Amino acid sequence: MTIRLAIIGAGIMGADHARIFANDIPGTSLSVICDASEARAREIAKVTGAADIATDPHASIKRQDVDAVLIASPDATHADLTLACIAAGKPVLCEKPLAPTTGECQRIIEAEVAAGRQLVQVGYMRRFDPAYTEMKAALDGGTLGRAIMMHNFHRNVEVPPWFTGAMAITNSAPHEFDAARFVLGADIRSISASQPRRTDDLVAPVVMILRTTDDQLVTIEVNNNAAYGYDVRGELVGERASVTLGAPVWSRTHANFGATETYAADWRPRFADAYRLQNHAFVRFVETGQPSAVAANAWDGMLSTLIADKGCEALASGATVSIETPDAPELYKTA
Amino acid sequence: MTIRLAIIGAGIMGADHARIFANDIPGTSLSVICDASEARAREIAKVTGAADIATDPHASIKRQDVDAVLIASPDATHADLTLACIAAGKPVLCEKPLAPTTGECQRIIEAEVAAGRQLVQVGYMRRFDPAYTEMKAALDGGTLGRAIMMHNFHRNVEVPPWFTGAMAITNSAPHEFDAARFVLGADIRSISASQPRRTDDLVAPVVMILRTTDDQLVTIEVNNNAAYGYDVRGELVGERASVTLGAPVWSRTHANFGATETYAADWRPRFADAYRLQNHAFVRFVETGQPSAVAANAWDGMLSTLIADKGCEALASGATVSIETPDAPELYKTA
Amino acid sequence: MTIRLAIIGAGIMGADHARIFANDIPGTSLSVICDASEARAREIAKVTGAADIATDPHASIKRQDVDAVLIASPDATHADLTLACIAAGKPVLCEKPLAPTTGECQRIIEAEVAAGRQLVQVGYMRRFDPAYTEMKAALDGGTLGRAIMMHNFHRNVEVPPWFTGAMAITNSAPHEFDAARFVLGADIRSISASQPRRTDDLVAPVVMILRTTDDQLVTIEVNNNAAYGYDVRGELVGERASVTLGAPVWSRTHANFGATETYAADWRPRFADAYRLQNHAFVRFVETGQPSAVAANAWDGMLSTLIADKGCEALASGATVSIETPDAPELYKTA
Amino acid sequence: MTIRLAIIGAGIMGADHARIFANDIPGTSLSVICDASEARAREIAKVTGAADIATDPHASIKRQDVDAVLIASPDATHADLTLACIAAGKPVLCEKPLAPTTGECQRIIEAEVAAGRQLVQVGYMRRFDPAYTEMKAALDGGTLGRAIMMHNFHRNVEVPPWFTGAMAITNSAPHEFDAARFVLGADIRSISASQPRRTDDLVAPVVMILRTTDDQLVTIEVNNNAAYGYDVRGELVGERASVTLGAPVWSRTHANFGATETYAADWRPRFADAYRLQNHAFVRFVETGQPSAVAANAWDGMLSTLIADKGCEALASGATVSIETPDAPELYKTA
Repeated sequence: MTIRLAIIGAGIMGADHARIFANDIPGTSLSVICDASEARAREIAKVTGAADIATDPHASIKRQDVDAVLIASPDATHADLTLACIAAGKPVLCEKPLAPTTGECQRIIEAEVAAGRQLVQVGYMRRFDPAYTEMKAALDGGTLGRAIMMHNFHRNVEVPPWFTGAMAITNSAPHEFDAARFVLGADIRSISASQPRRTDDLVAPVVMILRTTDDQLVTIEVNNNAAYGYDVRGELVGERASVTLGAPVWSRTHANFGATETYAADWRPRFADAYRLQNHAFVRFVETGQPSAVAANAWDGMLSTLIADKGCEALASGATVSIETPDAPELYKTA
Repeated sequence: MTIRLAIIGAGIMGADHARIFANDIPGTSLSVICDASEARAREIAKVTGAADIATDPHASIKRQDVDAVLIASPDATHADLTLACIAAGKPVLCEKPLAPTTGECQRIIEAEVAAGRQLVQVGYMRRFDPAYTEMKAALDGGTLGRAIMMHNFHRNVEVPPWFTGAMAITNSAPHEFDAARFVLGADIRSISASQPRRTDDLVAPVVMILRTTDDQLVTIEVNNNAAYGYDVRGELVGERASVTLGAPVWSRTHANFGATETYAADWRPRFADAYRLQNHAFVRFVETGQPSAVAANAWDGMLSTLIADKGCEALASGATVSIETPDAPELYKTA
Repeated sequence: MTIRLAIIGAGIMGADHARIFANDIPGTSLSVICDASEARAREIAKVTGAADIATDPHASIKRQDVDAVLIASPDATHADLTLACIAAGKPVLCEKPLAPTTGECQRIIEAEVAAGRQLVQVGYMRRFDPAYTEMKAALDGGTLGRAIMMHNFHRNVEVPPWFTGAMAITNSAPHEFDAARFVLGADIRSISASQPRRTDDLVAPVVMILRTTDDQLVTIEVNNNAAYGYDVRGELVGERASVTLGAPVWSRTHANFGATETYAADWRPRFADAYRLQNHAFVRFVETGQPSAVAANAWDGMLSTLIADKGCEALASGATVSIETPDAPELYKTA
Repeated sequence: MTIRLAIIGAGIMGADHARIFANDIPGTSLSVICDASEARAREIAKVTGAADIATDPHASIKRQDVDAVLIASPDATHADLTLACIAAGKPVLCEKPLAPTTGECQRIIEAEVAAGRQLVQVGYMRRFDPAYTEMKAALDGGTLGRAIMMHNFHRNVEVPPWFTGAMAITNSAPHEFDAARFVLGADIRSISASQPRRTDDLVAPVVMILRTTDDQLVTIEVNNNAAYGYDVRGELVGERASVTLGAPVWSRTHANFGATETYAADWRPRFADAYRLQNHAFVRFVETGQPSAVAANAWDGMLSTLIADKGCEALASGATVSIETPDAPELYKTA
């Protein structure tokens, strides 16, 4: 049985997903690439062998030859399109964020609860990254003792001058929020945020401290103009030991009085395995109807948006902001 | 168009290949798993969703529903089965070695030359490993200047007591022979081999020095009873700089007064990407009829067997043995 | 000219200093080892070849055969003894902290100002550590662009159950406060502090965020029960690049499916070079009357105590506490 | 009691030794710096505070105010001057090699045996390097099981065009010969040597394979024109585990899409600790009359020269050359 997919949005992320499905995920076919730009849709359809192109996402979702949907359109459209997938009874892998506001996320959750089954997987792909997998396994295996802190560093090469600290929290930090919740198995109870000063027009890093419901501390640095390369680091500190994230380093060059390992310009080499494994898990979800135990669901997606909201409030006010995590509907509770 | 495959041999390597095709290589289907043990074939067919099983490799190769063949049966059968694939006009990815004797390799080459086109790809998967790829790119990009030496270390956890130094040269070292030829773009002109003494019944490491036709030196240590883990290291030394192979290290544990990165027990985690990329390349070869520019062909396979032969001679005699590389048929010459 | 020293306090630090002077610093002799325990003083005098022992620190400081003084007695005695050194006109290297209260530090500063010359060097030895030296050189050399953040991690194996979070701030963190001021060349303007929860009786880590007068952010984790080893890490993040502290790793063991680098049980192997270089600098100071441009002076010592005070206040209140750095007397201003 | 030293030779090595004694080794004074160039001697005397200068090494050795001697004059003078020290009954630390010919070494040994006590320490300082110390400790502690191989890589930035492969063996490789004998506790039984081809006028690397009297294999690469930095690597491979040499890396810079650790231009930063510890050991030797159990003695010095001789023979002939290690005189046998 081949899973027939609609790719909604053919920007960087959508094109990447289309390529991943076409090149690396047996058992899938691309029925349609849908993008506001027909030219863009056509280009991606060509390189991925997709059967058709479209510009209307709602129509694409409803197509008979579409079993499941990948949403990588602009963030503001995520809720609307995800709701359309739920309405159509079609499993959907929605790129992060699930939606930019908790209100929209809440509507998705209500729709899913009403549908009586999970249909939504959210693209927090780090849960499938081998480094986080090993980190979580070290914790679950008892090596560390109880986890007490997690340190997270998220560095991009650069973002445009119009990028703001709030955007660092809503666009980049949710990966860290989700990773912390996933690894620690706890919710976030409070957040504070501050920024140093840069001397140019670019957004300065944002440093956050979060406290979990198990009274663990999570530090997060989001540095969107780190300049030197794409670099994600992390450490989980337990009462007895600690584990740090690695990254695939395939070679080391010894030249000009230095031994150098390279950084990539963006996230793709670092998280190639994670995206591949995530999309595999989505296909199994579609095949079995059973949501992945690892993947982020709509509830996880809502919480990352909620934490980001509170993080923006914390950054604006300079104060530590409390986060009240609502009770999860039964649908999202694991046995 | 789906490539329909026969997997010949369902031992460790054959089962791995079947899983790789089933899980990671879109555009392929497994028509038949063939193994001397019907039970074994059945088991692997079940986990990979293969359509059929068989115990007769020749019949399997000839099947109408088979477009291409993966050979992972015992080494002694490689030549016979590869010749059968050539006779059937079906592309074949043959696990290393192409054949245990140069005579057999020569017959394969003659058959391919007679067929007028390449049909054979040999499973020297390291050519697709990202570490070797970066090493070769550093050389080709000019960072190193001219290459003058290559150091190679191949370490397995253990082999049984009946394993010999000659087997280290014929079973393990061919990966190093092929990697050296691939990275350096040169042929091997001589080889010497020696062993230290172990105090137990296990085979001691074999240390080899090879000289290329460009007067480069290649050192190889094959340590099949390294005990501590599966570990492949390498360095390419140029006149101006050097590049060392890395390996994916996904996490580091800080515990008990040590910071530890783990070794796997066998080659699979280390070369998972290489196998996947190699098998992708094979599928493109089948689709296009155009052999991969990266993959080892029958000529490469023959040369690794030839070098291994001479290495065994060198180990037995204690002397440096010359290697006369014959002229490659036109079929194997790249423009 | 030999510098004749009095060592006040023969506990772990005092004994270490006595050994460093005796074994590694030519041009010095130990006139007296002074400790409340005569037996302890005698033991250390024996292993270091000190000429005499004593139990009265004031008398020791005043001796004719003492040119300079090393204070490593209990923290509560530092101010009193440092003042005695100033009164005697004898240069003093005082172990950190200069004094536990800013009031005492202030009296020392007043005495030094009254004396019209610097006599006090404070034992913040990290300023001489090659790792911090390279970090600061990277900043001063322009590699990083302007510094915007500094991350600091201070981990001990364990402390007794009676150790508190406030003690983590007053005993361990001053090293980080001083290193941040030294590397960044800025003062601290505010501090906040929080702790996760441990499940045993041991003190949990303290996480602090400091803001400098140049609007840089400094994060500090002090984890006194890290269990796995003595581990100091740090990173200086600039607008264009970043530099992380290394540590001397002399070997790597490949055994039991792991590659392991060891951690020491305490600070001595990590900072052996720093102590040696610091004490060398003190001797030059004594010889020339010219205070080291690198070493911490009384003003630096006072500021670390002040920051620690405010850190304790921040930890107790949960709020961010402002720090008003007073104007430095002329004596401490560098041209 | 202060040890009064004569430094014979004020070139790079002699000047370094003078500085080490002056700055880092309490209990020593420099009575005289002796060099063929009076100006050079004067310059080094000035920076190290030496009492006197001289141009006559024999007279310097005989001075009443000289208790012990450091020889760092040209290699060809080592034997003559070392014999003069023995004749004068004065302990001597002779830079490597002990002498360029085994005949000269033999005369030194005969003189020492006639004197009835060891007076000579040879400057194979790696025996005091913390990395080799940890390597040897891992072996002696049983972690590795029995040692079966040792790999050694010695890389300099560059040497002049007149430097030859034989000089690589006689000037650089003796450090590796001595380190192998020291770590393995075995003698060398045979050696072979070969070189790749460079395309410029510079000497190509020399690759050697040595076999010990315990049937261990030792590989050595001496690459005197490695270009990229001063780099010494090594690995000791046991039947159960392996240990690799580290090097002090004090910082890592993350810039321009790379994480870089620096190489120094020469051996001094890498082996600063080793030289310091070696010279400390020499002073203890002078004080106690008891030769260091770690340091190389005249017998060790002779054997490195012997192995180098045979290495040159092997390089010239292309054959494996046997080495007959003579029986050590009683004076050099350890209980």
